[in-house]
Amino acid sequence: MIEIPPHIASPSTPGSPLGLHRVLSPDGVLPQAAWQLDAGPALWPDEVRVDVERLNLDAASFRQLSDQHDGDGDAVRERVRQIVRDRGKMHNPVTGSGGMLIGTVAEVGPNSPLGLRVGQQVASLVSLTCTPLVLDSLDDWDGRSEQVPCRGHAILFGRSIAAVLPDDLPAHLALAVLDVCGAPALTRRVVTSYARTGTAPTVCVIGAGGKSGSLALAAARSAGAGRRIGVVPLERERAALIAAGALDDAPLADEVVLADARDPVALAAAVTAAGGPADITVVCVDVPDCEHGAILATSDGGTVIFFSMATSFAAAALGAEAVAADLTMLIGNGYAAGHAELALDELRRSPGVRSLYQARITEGTP
Amino acid sequence: MIEIPPHIASPSTPGSPLGLHRVLSPDGVLPQAAWQLDAGPALWPDEVRVDVERLNLDAASFRQLSDQHDGDGDAVRERVRQIVRDRGKMHNPVTGSGGMLIGTVAEVGPNSPLGLRVGQQVASLVSLTCTPLVLDSLDDWDGRSEQVPCRGHAILFGRSIAAVLPDDLPAHLALAVLDVCGAPALTRRVVTSYARTGTAPTVCVIGAGGKSGSLALAAARSAGAGRRIGVVPLERERAALIAAGALDDAPLADEVVLADARDPVALAAAVTAAGGPADITVVCVDVPDCEHGAILATSDGGTVIFFSMATSFAAAALGAEAVAADLTMLIGNGYAAGHAELALDELRRSPGVRSLYQARITEGTP
Repeated sequence: MIEIPPHIASPSTPGSPLGLHRVLSPDGVLPQAAWQLDAGPALWPDEVRVDVERLNLDAASFRQLSDQHDGDGDAVRERVRQIVRDRGKMHNPVTGSGGMLIGTVAEVGPNSPLGLRVGQQVASLVSLTCTPLVLDSLDDWDGRSEQVPCRGHAILFGRSIAAVLPDDLPAHLALAVLDVCGAPALTRRVVTSYARTGTAPTVCVIGAGGKSGSLALAAARSAGAGRRIGVVPLERERAALIAAGALDDAPLADEVVLADARDPVALAAAVTAAGGPADITVVCVDVPDCEHGAILATSDGGTVIFFSMATSFAAAALGAEAVAADLTMLIGNGYAAGHAELALDELRRSPGVRSLYQARITEGTP
Repeated sequence: MIEIPPHIASPSTPGSPLGLHRVLSPDGVLPQAAWQLDAGPALWPDEVRVDVERLNLDAASFRQLSDQHDGDGDAVRERVRQIVRDRGKMHNPVTGSGGMLIGTVAEVGPNSPLGLRVGQQVASLVSLTCTPLVLDSLDDWDGRSEQVPCRGHAILFGRSIAAVLPDDLPAHLALAVLDVCGAPALTRRVVTSYARTGTAPTVCVIGAGGKSGSLALAAARSAGAGRRIGVVPLERERAALIAAGALDDAPLADEVVLADARDPVALAAAVTAAGGPADITVVCVDVPDCEHGAILATSDGGTVIFFSMATSFAAAALGAEAVAADLTMLIGNGYAAGHAELALDELRRSPGVRSLYQARITEGTP
């Protein structure tokens, strides 16, 4: 169980492993719920400071910022600079989401439990919404992609999670995978649990062409899913997902269908025509209003995993009730034990997934 | 799987069991997501019209309305009248939540699958957010309680769910129970699943003195929970819950602790001191910002069930990640097969729960 230290005033006294000592306002909340964090470079004894090289903005956050400024990269960059200056963290106040970072360990407090060493290149596996951050420069970023080259520093707490970047993958590729590593982990867990009943479940991934979606498909495949249905909004994405699947021993999806996930009736019809309804539906899109489609595309007794940060709790809860759908609905937890290694392994095993990631990074697509 | 009929223009053509034909705007969404419904009294062939006698507003919705108008009952009543007139349903645009209703079956379409007969007294078990509603009078309501005596009519679709009110319970008591019947059903399911592993789980219910909270405790007790911890915000509620428990053969909660659920550190400390952390935490409060406390009060590998309509999806998803909590987090589905009978049976078996309900109804407490 957590320790519960009092608020303290200086690094000379013990910090809270949850980072409570960095919360400036409001009082008494966790860093993720805080409006403003103290991002000063001096370390409490159990903290680690990282020299930041790159942020990976959450897809929903980047899309919101880009939409708000009509795709004007300079304006997006200025807005990110302002958010981090105001809040001491990259926490989009509209979407409530953040992203993650990579950097090099600059200093390790004497009581840090994270096992890191100065000079290691690491990715933080906790959200930017709870990570104290100072940006010294954004000059190398054009404001047009969610991968943000930068200079600055960030603080990891005693209970934060960080992964040392693997030697065998480029840093930006590893970062993109680690950003969504909760999705394949939870998908695998749910598929495995179903498969234990003796029936290979039908799995539908909505937003299957994206980062979390393609890894969720790969994880479902590894975990013993039966029919796999991918839903994408554009023909271009459909072609890319099919081509990627052809690079693997088995396709990522048995069927890739085009549908607007915000149109519940059309989505359910498309999934049904592709062999659904699904026993397990994984929502990996970064736009709002996809809850009802996911519910209608899932068979009674099935499970919907919501990974989109654009998910509305009320729309999901009331939507299922409204159509008398007896479903298990899971909030996609960004953390699961072993999630980083699992996601990197799925990418290593799947040339198809890797090709999709590579294309997105090359194009600067969110 | 659902039928997917086209939008249609008059009751002379078949309706959609989902009620799509009643959606006025925006196009193509389900009634729950609609801004405005057609609540006209003429029936499509698979519909049922109910003469409405009483609404039970969702607790989060009533609290928001009451707070917005500083407890001015006349202003709250006028606002409810306006919402229903504007939207064709009682769907609070701020909280996104509704409630439920009771009334008498006035007309049954020839193709209705619900099995209802004219004259039966029924409760709708789908949210008011997706139920076409016209209010003719609110004159008997003082705007100061979530139970709203009224006159008007509502429409049930082919796939709506309604329960015939039991003969052995007063209508307003049955309505209050049926309003929250998803909570004991899901709690029982999760506790039963844990108990099957051979260990009786520790269950913590946050907001244990309320309607959904007390029924969730009773359901946990019936399903084989071990230690049961109730969290309430006020000494008055604590005393009431302990006194109620003394009416039953076994107490509703082994420990009832006082804590502000919005203070995560204080909540976790209180639950731990009472024998936690919990294996299963059920969130039944109607105020925002309780996600982090629930996460910290739950042991790794445990489950949090969010029943509060004030839950933030992002706060839950990112909060668990931020503190590396490997938890299953469930969106409280308002529907589960058999949920109405199960909830009524828990009340019948528990004089304690019944006394809590009776007191709330007498006081007009939400």
